[in-house]
Amino acid sequence: MSDSGQLVGDLGEQHLLRMVQRFCSNTLIGDDGAILSVSPGHLLVVTTDSFVDGVHFCDRTLSPFDVGWRVTAANLSDLAAMGANPLGITVSLTLPNDLPSAWVQGLYEGINACLTQYDTPLIGGDLCGGSLVTVAITALGETLPHRVIRRDFAQVGDAIVVTGYHGGSKAGLELLLDPQRGEVLTPRQRQRLINCHQHPRPRLDVLPELWKLDESLHLAGMDSSDGLGDAIAQICRASQVGAVINLARIPIPPGFSHWLEPETLWDWVFYGGEDFELVLCLAPALARSLVANLGPRAAIIGQITASPRILLQDAQGHILPQTLSLERSFQHYAPQGTGNRE
Amino acid sequence: MSDSGQLVGDLGEQHLLRMVQRFCSNTLIGDDGAILSVSPGHLLVVTTDSFVDGVHFCDRTLSPFDVGWRVTAANLSDLAAMGANPLGITVSLTLPNDLPSAWVQGLYEGINACLTQYDTPLIGGDLCGGSLVTVAITALGETLPHRVIRRDFAQVGDAIVVTGYHGGSKAGLELLLDPQRGEVLTPRQRQRLINCHQHPRPRLDVLPELWKLDESLHLAGMDSSDGLGDAIAQICRASQVGAVINLARIPIPPGFSHWLEPETLWDWVFYGGEDFELVLCLAPALARSLVANLGPRAAIIGQITASPRILLQDAQGHILPQTLSLERSFQHYAPQGTGNRE
Repeated sequence: MSDSGQLVGDLGEQHLLRMVQRFCSNTLIGDDGAILSVSPGHLLVVTTDSFVDGVHFCDRTLSPFDVGWRVTAANLSDLAAMGANPLGITVSLTLPNDLPSAWVQGLYEGINACLTQYDTPLIGGDLCGGSLVTVAITALGETLPHRVIRRDFAQVGDAIVVTGYHGGSKAGLELLLDPQRGEVLTPRQRQRLINCHQHPRPRLDVLPELWKLDESLHLAGMDSSDGLGDAIAQICRASQVGAVINLARIPIPPGFSHWLEPETLWDWVFYGGEDFELVLCLAPALARSLVANLGPRAAIIGQITASPRILLQDAQGHILPQTLSLERSFQHYAPQGTGNRE
Repeated sequence: MSDSGQLVGDLGEQHLLRMVQRFCSNTLIGDDGAILSVSPGHLLVVTTDSFVDGVHFCDRTLSPFDVGWRVTAANLSDLAAMGANPLGITVSLTLPNDLPSAWVQGLYEGINACLTQYDTPLIGGDLCGGSLVTVAITALGETLPHRVIRRDFAQVGDAIVVTGYHGGSKAGLELLLDPQRGEVLTPRQRQRLINCHQHPRPRLDVLPELWKLDESLHLAGMDSSDGLGDAIAQICRASQVGAVINLARIPIPPGFSHWLEPETLWDWVFYGGEDFELVLCLAPALARSLVANLGPRAAIIGQITASPRILLQDAQGHILPQTLSLERSFQHYAPQGTGNRE
């Protein structure tokens, strides 16, 4: 912690590299790169994602630790979305000279904390100067060929399963930006929503539950990093199918229904994004087993249909006038007879 | 090319993504990531490197095509340095809204041109907004366990082999920054040096020559991306050995000795950097075979010694007063009796 008052520019690259290398797995780092084994018969899965200061994070809502956690979680979530267990991540950082070196230390502590939770090594990276903090992560994972989860595998009649709550990350962000909001929430509800934003959890824990169901499972799915609505629409587009979604079956974060008007509630649930949950399509009987195994926060929220549209229905099974689409038409959603808006 | 007059901010992410995806290998791109096979029994090698506008490249010396070529070559060179054949690369871009979309198109054309030369697919990437152009590349390769090239494998008595010329990239940069320089160079020499800077070639072609020598070869080495002097010093430090380098045996780019005073010449050769050649340490008999196979641009320039110092000698075998070290003490080198400086 003796470096904490110093700036990146004062510290020098070699010192900064040594600070960062403390978080790396020594056994994997070779020289110009890292060396890994992929298990026999497994495929390698590679995902990459960049995060930019002021675009994907800001000091007002995320500490450096939180930034590190979130960028790591987002990349591990991409692996989960493909059905892959993580092998390691690399981190490329662009750092301004006037950034406190404690910020970099905090970032790596957050990266490390998230990686430790998922037993994943930091296998390398790169530091360079630049006027804007940019964090580019590449995550590597492995899976067996028949376990790959793809967007274009959804079949008519499949049940659509979601894990966890949606909208929590967006709600947490709003509470951080304006602490006056959400006065009807209990302190615990408020803290949980903030935690959804700061420390999201990639759903790698779901994968073993999937493999238990049936080794020859034909799974479609993706993560909900760009929103539940986007995930459903992407799967339907890639698989050339439609869906019917029952709003009453979607798990809603505790406190949402007291706090939010329906328009805001459904906007956050469908389009808030960054909840990093999974949206999966599989045969109804298997879906019921999966939901039973995952517990109350997972649910079957609808089914895949042959029609190209994504219809919404209310608790009584009535089809609502709005549909979901990639163009986010749902933004203007106002359910008939269920809301209190004029 | 209809997009060429537009700015990144006008084009929108979806349009830009489609433009970029034209360069990606469709068969490998899954959904949230790419899927690759690693050959049975092979290790996966992963390297990552970032490049920032104004730090690693600028409009004055590199077109967008050149930037794409160079960042790709640098990453493939890291794979060559580890003894790995490339499997694919990912590209994460940060792009300001006011960047012409033709710049992005040019960048990808350069990336693609370099990848095509080395039969390597672009397997994915990520685009995001930000005030500074940043290109973060992760390269994946594979190699057999006994073929991994490491910095810490050098043994006393090994011959030190360099491929290609050193100093050419730095010379090319200087010629681009000040076209008045180098008036003694022929047009062909000038163009070759500029080409060293704009379109360096990763030495993946050397790997099959190494594997021909001996399957149980114990090779030390790295690439010279940070300079020939740095590469020798890094290998010696990692292997806890020293070296004697004979200056007269180092291949010097055509035109250098007429153009440059010795101090500048050796500074560029040892510390210019970004030549992306290989520096390899191996048994003398094998080194002689390798150099014979690689042709006149490869050479044995010295040998590994038990002393911790890196000594330099002239054509007559006289040891010079300066040594090479990681701290770049060579910057102040002035060889006794060989130069024309006071």
